[in-house]
Amino acid sequence: MAEPGDRPPGREAVVDLLGLLALGELLAFERMAVDARLSPDLTRRARMSEAAVGEIRNYRLLADRLEALGADPAEAMTPFMEAFRAYDASTAPRDFLEALVKVYVGDAVGDDFFRHVAAELDDDDRALIERVLETGSAAEFAAAEIRAAVEDDPQAAGRLSLWARRLVGEAINRAQGVAAANERLTGLISGGGGSVDELLRRLTRAHQERMKAVGLNN
Amino acid sequence: MAEPGDRPPGREAVVDLLGLLALGELLAFERMAVDARLSPDLTRRARMSEAAVGEIRNYRLLADRLEALGADPAEAMTPFMEAFRAYDASTAPRDFLEALVKVYVGDAVGDDFFRHVAAELDDDDRALIERVLETGSAAEFAAAEIRAAVEDDPQAAGRLSLWARRLVGEAINRAQGVAAANERLTGLISGGGGSVDELLRRLTRAHQERMKAVGLNN
Repeated sequence: MAEPGDRPPGREAVVDLLGLLALGELLAFERMAVDARLSPDLTRRARMSEAAVGEIRNYRLLADRLEALGADPAEAMTPFMEAFRAYDASTAPRDFLEALVKVYVGDAVGDDFFRHVAAELDDDDRALIERVLETGSAAEFAAAEIRAAVEDDPQAAGRLSLWARRLVGEAINRAQGVAAANERLTGLISGGGGSVDELLRRLTRAHQERMKAVGLNN
Repeated sequence: MAEPGDRPPGREAVVDLLGLLALGELLAFERMAVDARLSPDLTRRARMSEAAVGEIRNYRLLADRLEALGADPAEAMTPFMEAFRAYDASTAPRDFLEALVKVYVGDAVGDDFFRHVAAELDDDDRALIERVLETGSAAEFAAAEIRAAVEDDPQAAGRLSLWARRLVGEAINRAQGVAAANERLTGLISGGGGSVDELLRRLTRAHQERMKAVGLNN
């Protein structure tokens, strides 16, 4: 299925990939604005909303690129709606800290995935992904808040670590479902030679390092 | 209570006013991101979210000004939380068109109110309000969508007109409550000589003109 790594992936596979990434950014934006309401005070509520703006800016970059490729962004995103819906339905945060961990995990794993796939793309698309990666305020905001909360209340670390593991487990489940249903996309992602499962293992290891950085265990 | 119009209003009254406006922008942002989920397709869903960004940018302008005045934005906003909460609780849209009418009415009445109070402020604050008024994408997006929907389905006009009247009625109720509870703010708003009730009548008339502009009745 995978094409040799030295040939640029087909247009359809790139449209699939950009559709997946665009939907991820759009829904991350919405999720943060919705979950901002869980915050214990107006200061954090506003900061969460402000941090969400980077995600919708990234959505616009990806949607513009889809249009430049002659694709309709909504059409390119639609095949992945169900996977995201299922992920969100099984990972509704119960409080603001859980919402922050969800932002942190999602943003960080997302960025790792962006970095991985960028290597498979041609120059224009790689440059686009690099621009998307430059906007990092959501994960930074979430990381600072989680670190402070765990310092204040070390007992929170256990509960939040468990929650982060559950988020990653659910995300991997959904990612495997998406990969199984979309041969073209799988071909692109594993174009470098590795399998999708190998990629997921790599993302999980990087995630474990990042958990330590905010005072959580894995 | 009202001070003579040729003396700049006291710092506390300006902090109250900026707090009210900042909270209005912050909650308008959240509301649009939340209500985007009511949209019938991903294209409109994304556009609604993108149109919301102007509101959070305005929030930041107002919050920065509050900080420059030595005030804490969250503290300045808190007294108005209950009025907005009550307004939203009594005006939850049942579908995407109702959500759009709520955006349109809220943004337009909000802008009229901004214009009115700007006249009472000193140069710096007036310049700030003018910058806030420059960002108008939310109302424009909503107006275009409502106009197209009413052209497509003329029967929708009656239902949406009724809904718009209800929104304005609820907003006036809440505004009267806020005015009655805050003498300082009332003094500033009616500083030009008119009463708060006169202002509300003026806002209502301007609103009726705007309803016609999108094909709704009043």
